[in-house]
Amino acid sequence: LTEKRNIYLENIPIEEAQNALAMALQAVGKNLPLAGEPVLLPDSLGRITAEPIWARISSPHYHSAAMDGYAVVAVDTVDATETRPLTLSYEQAKAINTGSPLPEGKNAVIMIEHVQEIDEGIIITAPIAPWWHVRMMGEDMVATELVLPANHKIRPVDIGAIAGCGHHQVSVRQKPHVLIIPTGSELVTADTEPKAGQIIEYNSLVLAAQIEQAGGRVTKLAIQPDKHDSLKNALQEALSQKPDLILMLSGSSAGSKDFTASIIQESGQVLVHGIAVRPGHPVIMGIARETPIIGVPGYPVSAALTGELFIEPLIAKWLGQQAEIATRPRITAQITRKVTSHTGDDDFVRVTLAKVGDKLLATPLSKGAGVISSLLRADGLAHIPRFSEGLDMRQEVKILLYRNLHGIEQTVMTMGSHDPMLDLLAQYLATQFAGNRLTSANVGSMGGLVALKRNETHIAGMHLLDEVSGEYNIPYIEKQLRDIPVRVVTFAHREQGLIILKDNPYKIKSLDDLTRVCYVNRQRGAGTRLLLDYELKQRGISPDDVAGYEREEYTHLAVAAAVATGIADCGLGVRSAAVSLNLDFVSVGWERYDIVIPQAYLEHPIVKNLLVTLNSDEFRTALAQQAGYDTRETGVVQYESEN
Amino acid sequence: LTEKRNIYLENIPIEEAQNALAMALQAVGKNLPLAGEPVLLPDSLGRITAEPIWARISSPHYHSAAMDGYAVVAVDTVDATETRPLTLSYEQAKAINTGSPLPEGKNAVIMIEHVQEIDEGIIITAPIAPWWHVRMMGEDMVATELVLPANHKIRPVDIGAIAGCGHHQVSVRQKPHVLIIPTGSELVTADTEPKAGQIIEYNSLVLAAQIEQAGGRVTKLAIQPDKHDSLKNALQEALSQKPDLILMLSGSSAGSKDFTASIIQESGQVLVHGIAVRPGHPVIMGIARETPIIGVPGYPVSAALTGELFIEPLIAKWLGQQAEIATRPRITAQITRKVTSHTGDDDFVRVTLAKVGDKLLATPLSKGAGVISSLLRADGLAHIPRFSEGLDMRQEVKILLYRNLHGIEQTVMTMGSHDPMLDLLAQYLATQFAGNRLTSANVGSMGGLVALKRNETHIAGMHLLDEVSGEYNIPYIEKQLRDIPVRVVTFAHREQGLIILKDNPYKIKSLDDLTRVCYVNRQRGAGTRLLLDYELKQRGISPDDVAGYEREEYTHLAVAAAVATGIADCGLGVRSAAVSLNLDFVSVGWERYDIVIPQAYLEHPIVKNLLVTLNSDEFRTALAQQAGYDTRETGVVQYESEN
Repeated sequence: LTEKRNIYLENIPIEEAQNALAMALQAVGKNLPLAGEPVLLPDSLGRITAEPIWARISSPHYHSAAMDGYAVVAVDTVDATETRPLTLSYEQAKAINTGSPLPEGKNAVIMIEHVQEIDEGIIITAPIAPWWHVRMMGEDMVATELVLPANHKIRPVDIGAIAGCGHHQVSVRQKPHVLIIPTGSELVTADTEPKAGQIIEYNSLVLAAQIEQAGGRVTKLAIQPDKHDSLKNALQEALSQKPDLILMLSGSSAGSKDFTASIIQESGQVLVHGIAVRPGHPVIMGIARETPIIGVPGYPVSAALTGELFIEPLIAKWLGQQAEIATRPRITAQITRKVTSHTGDDDFVRVTLAKVGDKLLATPLSKGAGVISSLLRADGLAHIPRFSEGLDMRQEVKILLYRNLHGIEQTVMTMGSHDPMLDLLAQYLATQFAGNRLTSANVGSMGGLVALKRNETHIAGMHLLDEVSGEYNIPYIEKQLRDIPVRVVTFAHREQGLIILKDNPYKIKSLDDLTRVCYVNRQRGAGTRLLLDYELKQRGISPDDVAGYEREEYTHLAVAAAVATGIADCGLGVRSAAVSLNLDFVSVGWERYDIVIPQAYLEHPIVKNLLVTLNSDEFRTALAQQAGYDTRETGVVQYESEN
Repeated sequence: LTEKRNIYLENIPIEEAQNALAMALQAVGKNLPLAGEPVLLPDSLGRITAEPIWARISSPHYHSAAMDGYAVVAVDTVDATETRPLTLSYEQAKAINTGSPLPEGKNAVIMIEHVQEIDEGIIITAPIAPWWHVRMMGEDMVATELVLPANHKIRPVDIGAIAGCGHHQVSVRQKPHVLIIPTGSELVTADTEPKAGQIIEYNSLVLAAQIEQAGGRVTKLAIQPDKHDSLKNALQEALSQKPDLILMLSGSSAGSKDFTASIIQESGQVLVHGIAVRPGHPVIMGIARETPIIGVPGYPVSAALTGELFIEPLIAKWLGQQAEIATRPRITAQITRKVTSHTGDDDFVRVTLAKVGDKLLATPLSKGAGVISSLLRADGLAHIPRFSEGLDMRQEVKILLYRNLHGIEQTVMTMGSHDPMLDLLAQYLATQFAGNRLTSANVGSMGGLVALKRNETHIAGMHLLDEVSGEYNIPYIEKQLRDIPVRVVTFAHREQGLIILKDNPYKIKSLDDLTRVCYVNRQRGAGTRLLLDYELKQRGISPDDVAGYEREEYTHLAVAAAVATGIADCGLGVRSAAVSLNLDFVSVGWERYDIVIPQAYLEHPIVKNLLVTLNSDEFRTALAQQAGYDTRETGVVQYESEN
């Protein structure tokens, strides 16, 4: 911590930042589409026309028969009638196939079905008008007509049209060349086994793919350590290659090691440092030796958004295209929970989408943690404009779609208790029914009941032990979902127990030991939390005597991870979570995990497919092989509300 | 015509045909997604996961600082207060940057802003709770969690997630290999100069691009002549390569040369020959040596539709994906004219789309001729199901979209008179305003007035001479558009005259010569037709005395093409059409061609851009350089309705 950050962070609105870069590019004549280069037609798919394409030849480029038959001169046929048939010699009538050129001097085609062929020629019983059954030169397209304008993205049919009009190659915009410099002493490439303190560098992979998808091409320098001189040399090396754009990717640390801005300033000019957008605030824009440079922040969600907001639009401009972010479909959805926002910034929140009943519901993904999962799971991007204070629960919000509506409509939403094997079910559903998708939000069993009541989920997973009857789930459903007729189907019986370190260093034998070790708990409303509370009560143990009772995790795997990393000595969870992380397990007992389906959704096609998958031999076999799962009642209907 | 067609054409509904092929594939174990192959992450964009991807390492894979500051043991800090600050030694407090691993034994991070650094250590004024400002191992994703399911198309962010979870390569579905055999003795490749009777083979280019876009890969044999033995050898050669699919493309002739079905039957089995779909009826499906074979009809619109209906879905199935045609967005639009349909067939009609006012209008593209242009211009595909008799004008119809709605909303529709330079305007519009589009339907000046009245077009082009006043356009507008306030802006003055052959072999000097030569006319309602009628009347010539008066073409270029190809000796049209096809021209006079814009659309953003383009120096200069155009009043407002 001896070096200090020496860069002043501004807070420039998005459009101002974009304009600053555009003006700097304009000053050096680079705010325009790139020049063209010729490519052969088979290589032209998805490329952008650099100039208009005019038909070089007409289509068809000669008069041809539109039918199989005989080519004739129309006036030769005028006297033919039913009662006075006419014979034309094989000089007067030339056999012709569809598509063949009309012989010189002929001007009509009589269909084969309308003639009688004899040795001397053909007999006809009706006259034919000139140009009948003739496909005329230029009927489709006349030479010199516009085939495609400039700045058009070439589709499969376009390739046919260009070829049909007499071209075998086409002038397309050069692919903008982006040179990426990943920086950060802590970064290692994806093919390395990272040690503690090392982070796999994947922002360059994401940005490269974004750029390729937008029509650019990417080259990369090796990862550069956070040292002033090596970074400066890398930038010089990059500038000497004269790319269209240089990206300097910061490492994930936002510490004193961030030299990017000062190095850009030394080689040229920093235009913007700090943009009023979240995530992505510390974006840098500069220019050196007529080459634009963007400093991309290291936090992966920021890096991806910087790509969408600032890099892809630049690529698009150089290709004469509109930016993806401007043309992507948008839709209005209801936000499922309150989102706070920084008033001074444009805030972008990734959401998952599901259509439940008539409502399109947008569930915000965690902004802070969950970096990878928020990128993976996002179906769309909610934009909270500057000077807004955020979104209220159930507020309508415009969402930029990452997935098309058809895909979203094929999504079953499950909210409620978390079971790791819901992933397995999702995986079998996607395999058995292409395009079908199961997304889950882990809000605990009680949270699932609430979501069902509010019609905010298709189905809910739960495992709630009724202390009085000793029965699972049904007593809660009968009480809480009186107005919502449901069917309850068993997912599996599963084994709950204490997840502990390998070889049990703390000698934990049962829940009685919780008073002397450090525990990690599940969140309020989770069935596993209720199970613990029930068992503690049975044993006369007060929660106050359990160290770590107040520390909450939201999933079984998170509990297992806390144990594996020494944050806690043990936690209650399913056996499969312990097995996943190579931990030991002290069984507490078996419980029934059910899926609750409102009868209204029993006919929903994807819910039906989900039940088919649940009942399939393939899935049941796979589930039975997991440690701590018993499938003897998997698929069994435990309860059906009376209507 | 000595060889006879020997193949019986059936009329199998689409689904039955697809099922027949699926069952034949199932019988040989090929109705399943293909196996996986490993690719490096930078090559994985757009590929399909062949198996689920599970996290190999957690993310983060170690506890790290979430802030710049000092790593401490939380219990060491409990006594610190504002009034009784506490000093921790540099052993108790280790300097740490965001992202760095937590030193062994430490369990919290105090932010740099909350400490005072002195020589002996740091001074703190508040306690910190365990795990505060620590990003914990697995917080984002725990090893063994599902990252991506199988059958998922890899996006840029997925590549980051896969790398972040410890993989540097990924197993993706092999690309289905499609081998294409183009057949037809009349076909030549796109790099050849075609002679009369030769046709440029471009169906293989379109199908190859469709297949690549759907995720397959293509190899091709050379074009095969329509000879039984060479076709049979080609099929044997193709089968020996063991592709996943063979396509035999028929030539454009539907004559006796079509051996495909019999050759498939000789090598294996024809499953289907003739499907109840238009266009595309003569599709063949077969299987030989466990390899499926599709015979693709030669008519280009049929070939493209066969690709969409039968080939792309097969590729999708082998990739574990849903077919593009099943997932593309659909929309409801109003059809602008009656469409008849074959009752027994599923009929697919390509349409252009424009949003005029609140209405989305679908204009059917010509089904017969206009092969290339119908492929090029289609914004969507209307499906007229079997047993329907077609569509009535203004009937609502479901349209499968080829272009996204945003693109359609950026389209200005012009109906009315045809001027070849509307293409030039469209081209400058697209260049000056990326994404903006002008589409035109040529219905003649009078047709344009009707379309304006019905609110079926944004703008209309017209050149209507009022016989009484000698004035252009305004008298018609005042009479016909009394209820629709409009602005009239001049496009250009242009020269009309007789388009004649080079060197004027028929010695045509003026319209007086029309009584002794063969004429080609424009359609009823066209301004040029009215001009002719006016001039004939002036000269006392009856239409009955003009040979060819009844032969109608819809555009100036079509008239020029008719003259160039000897169909007629002359026709009335604009000078630029004559110049385009290297013809001569006898001037008849200059006329004013105006654009009529309802005032309601003056604020339409794309209409505004169109007017900016019309008034731009670049466009006016380009237009003035065209033969027969005078831009002295281009952009001038000639008339504005009073409200």
